[in-house]
Amino acid sequence: MTTSLSGKELASALRQDVTARAARLTAGGTPPKLAVVVATDDEGSAWYVRSIARSAEKAGIVCDIVDLGADADRDAIADRLAELSRDRAVHGIIVQTPLPTGISAADVAGQVAVAKDVDGANPASLGRLVAGIPAFAPATAEAVVAILDHHHIGLEGVEVAVVGRSTVVGKPLAHLLLDRNATVTVCHSRTTDLPAVTSRADVVVAAVGRPSLIGADHVRSGAVVVDVGTNPTDDGGLVGDVDAGAVTGKASALTPVPGGVGPVTTALLLRHTVEAAEGQV
Amino acid sequence: MTTSLSGKELASALRQDVTARAARLTAGGTPPKLAVVVATDDEGSAWYVRSIARSAEKAGIVCDIVDLGADADRDAIADRLAELSRDRAVHGIIVQTPLPTGISAADVAGQVAVAKDVDGANPASLGRLVAGIPAFAPATAEAVVAILDHHHIGLEGVEVAVVGRSTVVGKPLAHLLLDRNATVTVCHSRTTDLPAVTSRADVVVAAVGRPSLIGADHVRSGAVVVDVGTNPTDDGGLVGDVDAGAVTGKASALTPVPGGVGPVTTALLLRHTVEAAEGQV
Repeated sequence: MTTSLSGKELASALRQDVTARAARLTAGGTPPKLAVVVATDDEGSAWYVRSIARSAEKAGIVCDIVDLGADADRDAIADRLAELSRDRAVHGIIVQTPLPTGISAADVAGQVAVAKDVDGANPASLGRLVAGIPAFAPATAEAVVAILDHHHIGLEGVEVAVVGRSTVVGKPLAHLLLDRNATVTVCHSRTTDLPAVTSRADVVVAAVGRPSLIGADHVRSGAVVVDVGTNPTDDGGLVGDVDAGAVTGKASALTPVPGGVGPVTTALLLRHTVEAAEGQV
Repeated sequence: MTTSLSGKELASALRQDVTARAARLTAGGTPPKLAVVVATDDEGSAWYVRSIARSAEKAGIVCDIVDLGADADRDAIADRLAELSRDRAVHGIIVQTPLPTGISAADVAGQVAVAKDVDGANPASLGRLVAGIPAFAPATAEAVVAILDHHHIGLEGVEVAVVGRSTVVGKPLAHLLLDRNATVTVCHSRTTDLPAVTSRADVVVAAVGRPSLIGADHVRSGAVVVDVGTNPTDDGGLVGDVDAGAVTGKASALTPVPGGVGPVTTALLLRHTVEAAEGQV
């Protein structure tokens, strides 16, 4: 029996809390505001940005989509991020990826004020996270821990294999898991024997962006599997990095895609925005 | 047969290079200068600071020991670090630990300019390291990789267990090892079965600060062991975290304490200082 670790219930609870806090902020004269800076005409990205904007507005958070166009240069993006960082009416800032070729997200995100960096994209936020100083974690990484907590899956002393070493998910997630006293192994494309490494773990987190990367061989019987992947399919759907069919029956629990980590990530972005408006970081 | 992975030869080669670069800088009118900020009367710390100062001066680097006293408060330390960051004659800044009770090294080190942060103590440096943006790594973490490189021990695809999750060694080291395509497990005091985890690894790095933490049970036959520990003994000596007697004969190689990671760390601090003076970061 493989339990489906849905993120919907948790996302709904988070949104409810955010909505109440946003209403209090607005009543107090500080309507929370999120700016999403976009410099791409990628359709998947446009879809994702619209979905954040809809969720924000439903929760009572003003969402400005700042579209700089797919040919924006580095300085135009960096300057706009610096300007939004100075704008007292803006509480949260997201730098949407992909960015135009040759522009590093970590570089331009260095212009996002740490106190407004609701997706933990500024390397300074990441460094604070690692050093144990208050900062917003990348929402996707935080969502992995939140969904495990919600389903009462303990992390203390547990062996977790994180597959993927990206700056936005794998690396910050490793630190969040260490903070929870998990023993953490970070694996990646150069790991010599991936199935051997992941099948030692109590919890496997797949965060690479490759469909069916994780199959039955990668998971030991009874392990918990978290699927961070969101890979578009030809028919307009979405699949994760885990071959759910192969893993079902072997894993004790698995997050679905869609409906797992994704909705929790969006809800956490909104929570970070009200926290920023409340002056928490 | 257990090979001793001495750090002396590498440290000497590094110092030679640093000495030549320092001489060029001085001849060009930019004598490289390192400031070590101290706020403790801990004897071990005083010994270490004097040893850095001696090494620096031998290499032609001016070393200022800025002793603020063991009762310095947070703002006094932070303000002095900010002032040194603005001082154009100072190229490298080290915040010596321990600091007075209640003062966080990561917090005050936030005042050290990233370009002068030769021991990677500012969380911003750490974040840049994680995000792949140029920054100085903590010298001890970098020394571990350097000593393995020097002795031709490959890291690509290799399983490394890092024991210890400190902000100054374990965590940044995990990132340096990931950058070298190792598969990295970070273990710590809450790891359920430490010998089981470490004895899976090809390379074990002990960075906790507890004598004899790593014994024969923790190391599989033929593994490479790096001992970062520097624990003072009652008779004024120094021992590592590894029970060298127990591990010798089982490990294929082991760094000695003293004479292993330590001298390489000091040499890398000096190299970072000339790099900073040359304007490399």
